[in-house]
Amino acid sequence: MRYLDEQAIEDIALGAAFLGTGGGGDPYIGKMMALSALKEFGPVKLLSSDEIADDDFFISAASMGAPSVLIEKFPKGDEYLRIFDKLGRYIGKGLTGTFPMEAGGVNSMIPIVVAAQLGIPLVDCDGMGRAFPELQMVTFHLNGVSATPMAVADEKGNIEIIETPNNHWTERLARAATVEMGASSSVGLYPCTGKDIKKSGVHGIVSLSEKIGQIIQSKKQNQAEKLKQLLEATEGYHLFSGKIVDVERDMAGGFNRGCVTIKGLTEQAQEEVKVYFQNENLIARKNGEVVAMTPDLICLTDLETLHPVTTESLKYGKRVHVLGLPSNPQWRTEKGLETVGPRYFGYDLDFVPIEKTQAKGGAVRV
Amino acid sequence: MRYLDEQAIEDIALGAAFLGTGGGGDPYIGKMMALSALKEFGPVKLLSSDEIADDDFFISAASMGAPSVLIEKFPKGDEYLRIFDKLGRYIGKGLTGTFPMEAGGVNSMIPIVVAAQLGIPLVDCDGMGRAFPELQMVTFHLNGVSATPMAVADEKGNIEIIETPNNHWTERLARAATVEMGASSSVGLYPCTGKDIKKSGVHGIVSLSEKIGQIIQSKKQNQAEKLKQLLEATEGYHLFSGKIVDVERDMAGGFNRGCVTIKGLTEQAQEEVKVYFQNENLIARKNGEVVAMTPDLICLTDLETLHPVTTESLKYGKRVHVLGLPSNPQWRTEKGLETVGPRYFGYDLDFVPIEKTQAKGGAVRV
Repeated sequence: MRYLDEQAIEDIALGAAFLGTGGGGDPYIGKMMALSALKEFGPVKLLSSDEIADDDFFISAASMGAPSVLIEKFPKGDEYLRIFDKLGRYIGKGLTGTFPMEAGGVNSMIPIVVAAQLGIPLVDCDGMGRAFPELQMVTFHLNGVSATPMAVADEKGNIEIIETPNNHWTERLARAATVEMGASSSVGLYPCTGKDIKKSGVHGIVSLSEKIGQIIQSKKQNQAEKLKQLLEATEGYHLFSGKIVDVERDMAGGFNRGCVTIKGLTEQAQEEVKVYFQNENLIARKNGEVVAMTPDLICLTDLETLHPVTTESLKYGKRVHVLGLPSNPQWRTEKGLETVGPRYFGYDLDFVPIEKTQAKGGAVRV
Repeated sequence: MRYLDEQAIEDIALGAAFLGTGGGGDPYIGKMMALSALKEFGPVKLLSSDEIADDDFFISAASMGAPSVLIEKFPKGDEYLRIFDKLGRYIGKGLTGTFPMEAGGVNSMIPIVVAAQLGIPLVDCDGMGRAFPELQMVTFHLNGVSATPMAVADEKGNIEIIETPNNHWTERLARAATVEMGASSSVGLYPCTGKDIKKSGVHGIVSLSEKIGQIIQSKKQNQAEKLKQLLEATEGYHLFSGKIVDVERDMAGGFNRGCVTIKGLTEQAQEEVKVYFQNENLIARKNGEVVAMTPDLICLTDLETLHPVTTESLKYGKRVHVLGLPSNPQWRTEKGLETVGPRYFGYDLDFVPIEKTQAKGGAVRV
């Protein structure tokens, strides 16, 4: 058990945005939300999954929809208070704490805001170990935990409580509500016990995010050393470095879909990497060949600062590293790949772990 | 106070379908639902608005969406039990009874099913005195009563509880949920007190429906006498009689929109009436000139049986009377016309009461 201070918030937001693989929101917005909440309500207690009791009761909190909309359509501030009040009373159980659903610049921070506002602890785990675009793409789902009763709210005062027979219906109904509310909403979901968290959570993800953030922000090393540390901390691979020369986007259905093309810098000018995304980066092709694919993580960072580059901030001329990280083992099971593998997203590809594509392809591990 | 028996159900379903102005569902389906519920749970108590107490608590029940979908996507049977259980507990008040939101073959019967299932009384009133396609088109809305907390459920086990700052948002969110659930849903809405009902309800509508049904089903009179009685009971006008020669439809957005063209029979062969509908009949033009318009009622009945013809059962060759009835006075106020007048539905017309178009146009009152 320890308390999260302002420095921890800054590091976690940055590291979680890195693990967000392009999704999960802008870390600057997330950080400002959390710092403002800490300033008003005091520091937030972080518990490891070992420190909670089996029958403790938790609800996760997140922002749903296209992250690029959140930038312009800012929450009013009372959304999560209304969500936790109404959902808690609907379920009729006393709340012990909260936890993030996914990594990402905003969605790592929202539960910290909620924990501060309600004076409850945050658990050092999430339900993805990265970010994914749909509600059922959660390790808890793989173990049969229902995302409902869940609540969806907006800044205009609307709130919905949704109960469904399965998490695919939850995704459909919550998505329809989110689109109607203006392509972005606030949600409380996956009400669960301490036992559920111990079994299904991706443990230590808040601490890992913090460590990544510390490496990125360290002023003691040069960029090459920092990149090396970053890949060591995440067991990741350096796939490519280059300049963004094209970004295609399609905002239909409340998602931020598209493809970014990255051309090699001088010495690699003939090479290119294309990264396909739906809120999050899903597939990376290098000169046409797939080098990394969902559920493994494809992370873009700024070439100079190593700051993560979210899919909504992709733009022509930006110079980036493309990195590949192995996903949590829960995603590499049969049910895991059914839920978030390449075929679910419409790519006719068998999943090949990044350890294999890199061993085969011979890309340089920094 | 009295009890509704099987004959009363048959009459009410038919009369309410007549007042449904083409919407509110098929009376045969509605009747079968209610008769089945009465058979299982016993007769339903009907109370007049005078017989309820000011602080009694009521929730209305209805089917939402395109009525034509309901025919194929039949409710499972427990939708309203789930709705009233979850919504009642969410609001935290003991329920006294229920009442219909609108007239119509199905939506007059749903509250009878609920009353039978829950063993609670039905109030002899509704919120329209006819049928309308959207949730805020309710006399209670004109007096500032909120439609929420409301519940939306489907036959697959999904349920949503919606709370909004105003009834236009309720319409948007409940419509989005209904479309996602398959263009038809079951809803509980406009939780209100006995005082609200006394102030805002369209009183005696269940009894009026029953009287209309009795006239239509009477075996003692010929069709001309029955039509005369029908118009007397409803203060209505005979606008036209003819044969349907064209039906255009558009099912987008969970509505049943379109236009039906009716050509005169032999002696009127040169004349035609076009009726524009969105679930309900909204505008009637005779030879191009508007002869009746929302919120006044435009009712189509079979030429031989006088049975009401719903918009989803319109088809080529059917011979019909077109009748026009004055609406409840609450709809003819400034706020009433803002809410359901021709302009709300996109017609650039000032509302002219049917009494005036008929005095001017000189259509024969039978």
